[in-house]
Amino acid sequence: MPDSEPPIALDAMGGDHAPHEIVAGAVHAVRERGLPIVLVGSPRVLYESLADHDATSEIPIIRAEEALAMDEGALASLRRPRSSIAVACHLLRRGDASAVVSAGSTGGVVATGKLRLKTQQSVIRPALAVALPTRPTPTILLDAGANAEVKPEMLVQFAHLGSAYAETAYGLETPRVGLLTIGSEPEKGNKLVKRAHELLRATPGIHFVGNVEGHDLLSGTADVIVTDGFTGNIALKTMEGAVRYAFTELSETITASPMARMGALMQRGRLKDLSRRLDSEAYGGAALLGLNGTVVVAHGASKAASVSAACELAATLSRKGIVARIGERLSTAPRPHRLW
Amino acid sequence: MPDSEPPIALDAMGGDHAPHEIVAGAVHAVRERGLPIVLVGSPRVLYESLADHDATSEIPIIRAEEALAMDEGALASLRRPRSSIAVACHLLRRGDASAVVSAGSTGGVVATGKLRLKTQQSVIRPALAVALPTRPTPTILLDAGANAEVKPEMLVQFAHLGSAYAETAYGLETPRVGLLTIGSEPEKGNKLVKRAHELLRATPGIHFVGNVEGHDLLSGTADVIVTDGFTGNIALKTMEGAVRYAFTELSETITASPMARMGALMQRGRLKDLSRRLDSEAYGGAALLGLNGTVVVAHGASKAASVSAACELAATLSRKGIVARIGERLSTAPRPHRLW
Repeated sequence: MPDSEPPIALDAMGGDHAPHEIVAGAVHAVRERGLPIVLVGSPRVLYESLADHDATSEIPIIRAEEALAMDEGALASLRRPRSSIAVACHLLRRGDASAVVSAGSTGGVVATGKLRLKTQQSVIRPALAVALPTRPTPTILLDAGANAEVKPEMLVQFAHLGSAYAETAYGLETPRVGLLTIGSEPEKGNKLVKRAHELLRATPGIHFVGNVEGHDLLSGTADVIVTDGFTGNIALKTMEGAVRYAFTELSETITASPMARMGALMQRGRLKDLSRRLDSEAYGGAALLGLNGTVVVAHGASKAASVSAACELAATLSRKGIVARIGERLSTAPRPHRLW
Repeated sequence: MPDSEPPIALDAMGGDHAPHEIVAGAVHAVRERGLPIVLVGSPRVLYESLADHDATSEIPIIRAEEALAMDEGALASLRRPRSSIAVACHLLRRGDASAVVSAGSTGGVVATGKLRLKTQQSVIRPALAVALPTRPTPTILLDAGANAEVKPEMLVQFAHLGSAYAETAYGLETPRVGLLTIGSEPEKGNKLVKRAHELLRATPGIHFVGNVEGHDLLSGTADVIVTDGFTGNIALKTMEGAVRYAFTELSETITASPMARMGALMQRGRLKDLSRRLDSEAYGGAALLGLNGTVVVAHGASKAASVSAACELAATLSRKGIVARIGERLSTAPRPHRLW
């Protein structure tokens, strides 16, 4: 890691378990992953928290005395220029940070990011991209909640943003792009997806593999799946709830009798591994793509492991030049208004 | 079971595993559940299939020489007045059947049902309702795919349809109705759900508990969850895929080492039970609500157990008077155009 690499600006005041779990995550990221990090927030609180880890001399603090509340959405954030997330974005814009990571309110992070970093040239709206735990490489789902209403041309842009993510993060040469809808036939779906299907098929540079359905999200059929933010957010939350439900049912089953419990004892090591893996993947963080700077939004309920994983993601995307790659893709793409 | 109760008209030719699994399901429903059933389809094929079960004298056959193909949608079904699903609906309309069950193409069943049974008075559009396996009583999700585009007033009607289902099938006095969206605050979501939220709050006879998110589908927070058919279908398929994914991951985990496998042997009885339960619940069948007659659409991939479960659902809804209950709810409800 070169000394000249700017650190990740980690918003230490955003999230259900801020600041202590954010700080714990930062310490893990610095010590176990070797990442350069600065914590943005209230110096007094953060210094105490770092002291709990004997880490006061390892991680710098950048002052921000205010923080957005978890229920503060987009509008409120515009009135808070000195919030920890605003300060973090400012660092990124000045080049004093390589990326921003926050577990704060998604609406607040998206609004602050758009205001302070601005969308890249040609980008209509930035999108939240989540990596689903498929194998061998994760599937990128976007938009996972930044835009509740979209136009068909935005779905084409999401395809570019997601493809750039898959190329830079996983080294995929031609990521397969699927369109989330309710049937495989092109005429299935609502007006938005039917129009988006036509546009995607006609767009060079997008390896469009056609419509995908809800059960394809975890099947590995596509490397990138595009949808509007409303549908994407509901699909993502449904998936999280369903996995949790299945685990609960299965846990009860494998401990429902003395004999079954004896069996569970024999599996506990592996069960623990699996639980840890799915947890951090589910909460690994969403990349906000399309801004002039790398921003990762960690799950609001993130604890240390998830925060650390989000920092890893930010470092990867920043080091591998996601912003530049998006710029390349969109500069060679026809401007949206010429697509019809 | 009174002798005068008309039988369930089971479309024997619709579905991936028709007719043999449909026939096997019918035999199970007659012998194990005591339900009255007639099979609709090709007499020659069905007689042979019934003979395999020694059941030729137990289940009548009604002739229909044609059948909709699985990929035939709504338009094609209008041109097929003698398809097995059309004949089944005709029996129901005449009062010679108490309900229709089909595992055929959803689009075909919905179109045929609307054409031959007509929507009930005041119903704008019928909706597909699925029972999710929550406890102590299932949660009704609708619309699960009949209407890709909806208006806000249709969501209010879905709330009535779903509440009628929960009242008749589970005896719930005041089913709690939730609106599926991307956040708990009323201002979260797209234009459709924001408007629907206002209407639901203002509708007497609907016990509206507010917005619910994707992870609430299996949490038991609401008895009825309303959404448009596009979102509902994607949420449902996402849920199915995620549960399957979790089970696969867990299965691999609990058999990943000799010790773990030994443990799995000790649990196999219970694992088998759980697998069977979730399977038949996932594929239990969707009720098409709002037509002048009870129609249940079984999952296209249904095998005997799912077909039998779908017949059970049809019998319950028919015997408990779902159509009448829907009529009561909508006749006392303000007519949709007066809601604004």
